[in-house]
Amino acid sequence: MAARVQRLSRSMLKTLRDDPADAETLSHKLLVRAGYVRRTAAGIWTWLPLGKQVLDNVSRVVREEMDAIGAQEVLLPALLPKEPYEASGRYEEYGQLLFRLQDRKGAELALGPTHEEIFTQVVKDQCTSYKDMPVILYQVQTKYRDEARPRSGVLRGREFLMKDSYSFDVSDEELAQSYALHRAAYTRIFERLGLDYRIVSAVSGAMGGSASEEFLAPAAAGEDTFADCPNCDYAANTEAVTTELTTVEGADQPPLEELDTPDTPTIDTLAAYLNVPASATLKNLLVKVDGEIVAVGVPGHREVDLGKLGEHLAPAEVELVTAEDFVDRPELVRGYVGPQGLAEHEIRYLADPRVAPGTSWVTGANKEGKHARNVVCGRDFTVDQYLDVVVVEPGDPCPKCGTGLRLDRAIEIGHIFQLGRKYADTFGLDVLGRDGKPVRVTMGSYGIGVSRAVAALAEQTADEQGLCWPEEIAPADVHVVAAGKAAQIELAVEVGDKLGAAGVRVLVDDRQGVSPGVKFTDAELIGVPQILIVGRGAPKGLVELKDRRSGERVELPVEEAIQRLTR
Amino acid sequence: MAARVQRLSRSMLKTLRDDPADAETLSHKLLVRAGYVRRTAAGIWTWLPLGKQVLDNVSRVVREEMDAIGAQEVLLPALLPKEPYEASGRYEEYGQLLFRLQDRKGAELALGPTHEEIFTQVVKDQCTSYKDMPVILYQVQTKYRDEARPRSGVLRGREFLMKDSYSFDVSDEELAQSYALHRAAYTRIFERLGLDYRIVSAVSGAMGGSASEEFLAPAAAGEDTFADCPNCDYAANTEAVTTELTTVEGADQPPLEELDTPDTPTIDTLAAYLNVPASATLKNLLVKVDGEIVAVGVPGHREVDLGKLGEHLAPAEVELVTAEDFVDRPELVRGYVGPQGLAEHEIRYLADPRVAPGTSWVTGANKEGKHARNVVCGRDFTVDQYLDVVVVEPGDPCPKCGTGLRLDRAIEIGHIFQLGRKYADTFGLDVLGRDGKPVRVTMGSYGIGVSRAVAALAEQTADEQGLCWPEEIAPADVHVVAAGKAAQIELAVEVGDKLGAAGVRVLVDDRQGVSPGVKFTDAELIGVPQILIVGRGAPKGLVELKDRRSGERVELPVEEAIQRLTR
Repeated sequence: MAARVQRLSRSMLKTLRDDPADAETLSHKLLVRAGYVRRTAAGIWTWLPLGKQVLDNVSRVVREEMDAIGAQEVLLPALLPKEPYEASGRYEEYGQLLFRLQDRKGAELALGPTHEEIFTQVVKDQCTSYKDMPVILYQVQTKYRDEARPRSGVLRGREFLMKDSYSFDVSDEELAQSYALHRAAYTRIFERLGLDYRIVSAVSGAMGGSASEEFLAPAAAGEDTFADCPNCDYAANTEAVTTELTTVEGADQPPLEELDTPDTPTIDTLAAYLNVPASATLKNLLVKVDGEIVAVGVPGHREVDLGKLGEHLAPAEVELVTAEDFVDRPELVRGYVGPQGLAEHEIRYLADPRVAPGTSWVTGANKEGKHARNVVCGRDFTVDQYLDVVVVEPGDPCPKCGTGLRLDRAIEIGHIFQLGRKYADTFGLDVLGRDGKPVRVTMGSYGIGVSRAVAALAEQTADEQGLCWPEEIAPADVHVVAAGKAAQIELAVEVGDKLGAAGVRVLVDDRQGVSPGVKFTDAELIGVPQILIVGRGAPKGLVELKDRRSGERVELPVEEAIQRLTR
Repeated sequence: MAARVQRLSRSMLKTLRDDPADAETLSHKLLVRAGYVRRTAAGIWTWLPLGKQVLDNVSRVVREEMDAIGAQEVLLPALLPKEPYEASGRYEEYGQLLFRLQDRKGAELALGPTHEEIFTQVVKDQCTSYKDMPVILYQVQTKYRDEARPRSGVLRGREFLMKDSYSFDVSDEELAQSYALHRAAYTRIFERLGLDYRIVSAVSGAMGGSASEEFLAPAAAGEDTFADCPNCDYAANTEAVTTELTTVEGADQPPLEELDTPDTPTIDTLAAYLNVPASATLKNLLVKVDGEIVAVGVPGHREVDLGKLGEHLAPAEVELVTAEDFVDRPELVRGYVGPQGLAEHEIRYLADPRVAPGTSWVTGANKEGKHARNVVCGRDFTVDQYLDVVVVEPGDPCPKCGTGLRLDRAIEIGHIFQLGRKYADTFGLDVLGRDGKPVRVTMGSYGIGVSRAVAALAEQTADEQGLCWPEEIAPADVHVVAAGKAAQIELAVEVGDKLGAAGVRVLVDDRQGVSPGVKFTDAELIGVPQILIVGRGAPKGLVELKDRRSGERVELPVEEAIQRLTR
């Protein structure tokens, strides 16, 4: 079957020598410079011809593998009525992330960030019996999220292309099967795309639900951090890393003792004053959870991950306390808060598992300029709830084998999880069960960032010369460069046509009046895997074949080059 | 190459026996009943698996023919910044049709109704020389228009799929070539789609520009009316039908005479009172054009087409006058307005070409209860501007040959036109010309309603039994019905797999516990061109092949049926 032959003389292509001023990440710089994408507004991008082809290639691979697991493709609207999102509670929970608008009649609408609600409604409408299950539906569709800081080009846009799919089953076991099908499909997809990726445990976030894994593409530009264990197979988004709670069984501890510690409102000043390590102190952060003041305790040398705290407490809203919150609360002495006595003021105390029963701390004495030592968990204070809220650091113990964890940056390219019955409950999605009685349906929700995968691929595969696409994703298989005058251009076009007729996708740089140097630079920048140079050897029927990645080049007769490329 | 085999036992499909309550048009009823689409909100639709396949088939044909004329596919965002649309004036002109929203920072955005502005910016960014022209760019993209009355299912939605393309040239002659390329591509597209269509002259509407034609698919459900001449090749949207202005050269007319005509505020009461045909009277409609009162004169027996009037005067806004507008305007006597003397009150008079110089009329005398006769155009009043504003009626003369026109309803499925330099002027889009000097670029703009084409196809091809797709568009080539028990289901699946392997797209109705009658009814409703029935003859290796459109059926050995279908 013949393949596409693109001639640059007839293509809209403008490459740039300089990085765009606002670009920070490699993929952003190169995708713009090589003419793949163009910024239309903050976080809103135009896909130019080469970019559109790469995007289509990724979409095609995704579709083929989704079809292969029996998923059915549909297309839902992006413009959505408010009501189903209000019913699920997400209309509020999404907060500013949701683009909202009104139509001419004042009806409230939103631009879909993800479609659990509408898919649940579709299936409620279409399916009535366990015989209709499992159902896996998917779409490759434009999504909208009003990111606070859209950045990194198409890596985190406000309008982006996503494959989202949803499974519907009548039992937990069958949901686990649909989940496993997706996990396998995602593995094949990312392998075909040529992405280096890791599957890690994840938290489920605003979606609700239980089992959840992320597919992460390690890259310096990534916004996620994951931990993996050099000793066992443990890997998790740092947001999902847990710490074991181990009660310390020790000898009797000395009694609590209050100390004058003037001018020590911070952990550093306190540790210096008392000459103890920061890790011996207990830091207590005050936050408001849905307006109620709550204290969060972590070892003094660790930071609280507010995002993680928010995830744990969602959908409740978490804010930091402000000076005003201390007015009329004499029991809260700023800089000198300790967990002892919080209970009598009905302030809940949440703590990191490191603040385990039996551990002893230096902490605030709830009096200006005073701290207490030998403050023992379980004796002098109690923890109402243990949560993993500290920022994970390299060397933290692996929850599985205790080995020190490694941390790496990565781009989230896929997320699969077992949602359970949250949305089925909201919309009353029941079908007739095998026993003739109604059974509540259980769901899975699965996403791949299609436009983000393009950026992730660019991040992982590019080099100093430019983009360098894996074969299946590249806008062409071969980039034929006519390095010379009419004779070279003529031969380049001829070779391009022959390759195209043989099913090889070709980009032919047949531009007149453009120097070979510029053409070579453009070819490296555009990143097609094979570069075929029709240059000085052309009159003798010789061409040069260059591997974009390795840079290896070989001169050979034109027919042999064609043969090699059509193999 | 193997083709898709869909087994209904594993597909999400629910057909309905009854028409949805809100459906008026055939395509709306059938697409919902056959499980192709599902309403999500007013004018906002979900494409279910079969519908998505038909939509993809239409898109594929459109893409192939656009690629064939050298058009390059891109993908622009649907979420757009306000500024370019403000620059072109369309941010205002679109009025309520434009969905507007604000992001979290208060920046104003719109959902793209069509993308002239952004394409112009893209080309300004990418192209610098006449050597880069012609450029034809296209996208198949979701568009948004907040229709006042979304209706007829996917025929007029508020979110819909459209192919829009834009040509960029350095001269009018080259624009004419790009236009001709599109006209030819559209002809091939609609022929491949199997649509009955007419190419008619059109007005350009809010787009600006000159030459403009529409591709109309005749259908009772259509919202457009077109006129065609039974004698010559003239065909036009009625909005674009013109009337020749012919000065009447006659003998001296009797002088203007005022008459007492009590209680005759309408044309009917006046004609009856004076015993003259309504066509002898001159009706004067008062409207406000950007707030200024203007009178519009048409023969008494014709209706003013306010839409057409609006198009002619756009971007000025046209409103009907209200009672309040008559306060402080004693010269305007409601029900008795005549064109004589409007000039002295500085009221502009627009008229239909039938109100030609030399014609004589009965019209208002600008006095309560009085009319005037022998009111001669050019003698007793003057027309400031002639406009084609009456509703075209069957039998109106063909502007080309004078024969009486026929009128028909149709669905607009395509629109091509030569925009000219409107947007290039707005954004200063110049490129280096052949003479080394900057030259302003001229544009064409071309659209195909992809989702609407699906509805138009359904309208034109369906019959009483259901949908009846042309081959290239159908979700499958053959619908295999297992009409019976295990033996029939087994054979149906086997035949389906063989056909699929041979490159025939197949839908296999292998559902258990569904009666043959229900399966036959579903097959007719779903509308795949060939129906292969595996029924009573199965044990003898006999099947029935039925043509969905003609209803012809023939019994034949299964291998022969497979052979026929794979030919």
